[in-house]
Amino acid sequence: MAKKGAVKLVVVGSIGLDNIETPRERRESILGGSLTYACAAATFFTRVGMVGVVGTDFPPEYMSLYRSFGIDLAGLRQEEGRTFRWSGRYEPDFINRETLSTELNVFARFSPELPDAYRSAPFLMLGNISPELQLHVFDQVHNPSFVLADTMDLWIRTALDPLRKVISKVTMLTLNDSEARLLTGLHNLRRAAEQILTWGPRYVVIKKGEHGAMLFSKAGTFLVPAYPVAEVHDPTGAGDSFAGGFFGRLASMAEHSEKAVREALLYGAVVASFGVEAFGLERFETLRKPEIRARFRELTAMIRLRP
Amino acid sequence: MAKKGAVKLVVVGSIGLDNIETPRERRESILGGSLTYACAAATFFTRVGMVGVVGTDFPPEYMSLYRSFGIDLAGLRQEEGRTFRWSGRYEPDFINRETLSTELNVFARFSPELPDAYRSAPFLMLGNISPELQLHVFDQVHNPSFVLADTMDLWIRTALDPLRKVISKVTMLTLNDSEARLLTGLHNLRRAAEQILTWGPRYVVIKKGEHGAMLFSKAGTFLVPAYPVAEVHDPTGAGDSFAGGFFGRLASMAEHSEKAVREALLYGAVVASFGVEAFGLERFETLRKPEIRARFRELTAMIRLRP
Repeated sequence: MAKKGAVKLVVVGSIGLDNIETPRERRESILGGSLTYACAAATFFTRVGMVGVVGTDFPPEYMSLYRSFGIDLAGLRQEEGRTFRWSGRYEPDFINRETLSTELNVFARFSPELPDAYRSAPFLMLGNISPELQLHVFDQVHNPSFVLADTMDLWIRTALDPLRKVISKVTMLTLNDSEARLLTGLHNLRRAAEQILTWGPRYVVIKKGEHGAMLFSKAGTFLVPAYPVAEVHDPTGAGDSFAGGFFGRLASMAEHSEKAVREALLYGAVVASFGVEAFGLERFETLRKPEIRARFRELTAMIRLRP
Repeated sequence: MAKKGAVKLVVVGSIGLDNIETPRERRESILGGSLTYACAAATFFTRVGMVGVVGTDFPPEYMSLYRSFGIDLAGLRQEEGRTFRWSGRYEPDFINRETLSTELNVFARFSPELPDAYRSAPFLMLGNISPELQLHVFDQVHNPSFVLADTMDLWIRTALDPLRKVISKVTMLTLNDSEARLLTGLHNLRRAAEQILTWGPRYVVIKKGEHGAMLFSKAGTFLVPAYPVAEVHDPTGAGDSFAGGFFGRLASMAEHSEKAVREALLYGAVVASFGVEAFGLERFETLRKPEIRARFRELTAMIRLRP
């Protein structure tokens, strides 16, 4: 971790203080948000800069935690007010969850502004924020070589035009299965993905939670398995860790071929599988590269015909 | 199809006349049951004999249909009374379903009796019937080289002792994820499977419906993907077609190594994926080997890192 040098991957998204209740445990004000998980996951592979906002209540120890991961904080702004907060409760399956409360706070006025040093970064990840804000990021960057955008049902329902514009400009779009159906009106996920590919992206990744993901491109379909985790403690942020782990790994690779994308997606699945073993970033704090490599080898062996 | 010669694979299970309602369509008295799906799926690869029971109301055209698949019917008995009947309705997701009615009819008195010609068959599949009846089959066979047994929550709850005896005698146990948890009291599927392996089977296959399956053995874990079907019309029997396709393929192979088992499981997934494209056996009636081979190649490409 703590990669030095120029920021190679810039991530834009949300930072939150989360109250999380699982069937086993309850934690308050833990560090979360899509930006947090994606950046931490990516730091295992590359130099990452975050673009986000926190309030004056943001605990200094969390700022130190970001630094200990080696995340570049030039794009992190602290503004008057409270940090974005989310409370949720997981059902006994550790998968379905109920949102108990959401307070946008300073995130309601968030407008991503990239420091000059980030504008030429080759890898750009637009987390799940409004498509208008995602377009605002596009206005600030100089020809990134690979742009990944995530989205959600809210924007499909309320901001379809700017979202379609975002989709036309990205290299990869990630969304979950129900969102792919909502966006295209097509029930079948392959047909939905093929439709989205005609709108511009080179890759579409459909996330299926604990069942993995599917990559679609002109080269065909790749089924990304989920690593079977022994004991899930907190699934919050798994999709963001998956995307961050994938993208960090890809950014660290010499070439960005379809094969590289497939391999990096497996790394994303591996990093996400570690993340859910503890609350928030706790597992990432102790996670080391040899563990990631070992589980990557294990996961690739699980999809190989030859044992 | 219509393989000739000695029966290599014997399958024991249920034959039903099903009323099926999906969000798109409704069909009455179509040919179903675990035995039907498993045998039909296996005929694409090997010579299959069925052990089951039907009533006097069983349509002669369904008997002809079995024959057209080349299934050996020496073990099929027709008894006074009505055939087993099941009615179910699928939810809009084509996955969850509600059982509207079940009439056991002649199946309530079913006792599997193997014709002499079946007793030395090397491959034996014990479909989901009571463990006592599964044990009764063991009493009639001469040292089969590979025995696969399926089970369900009902037997785990009501007949655990004989079920444990069955498990100690089989080569492979198949069950779904919730059943594996119920049987072992372990939430984690890997730990559950590892527990079951200590009871005797060389292989445990945990089925996850439209999300594929997982193979566990001393050699490790293999994640069996589900082929992403363009349009599901009737998912009834998919698990049985998966098992039958797998086992028929394995029976046709020269060796039964772990690699052979993995490959055969992919064939099972492929055959099952065709089966759900139409009601009952309709898709299997037109399905040909080159289609199976092509989809097998497609599915293996979908889990390969190199595109």
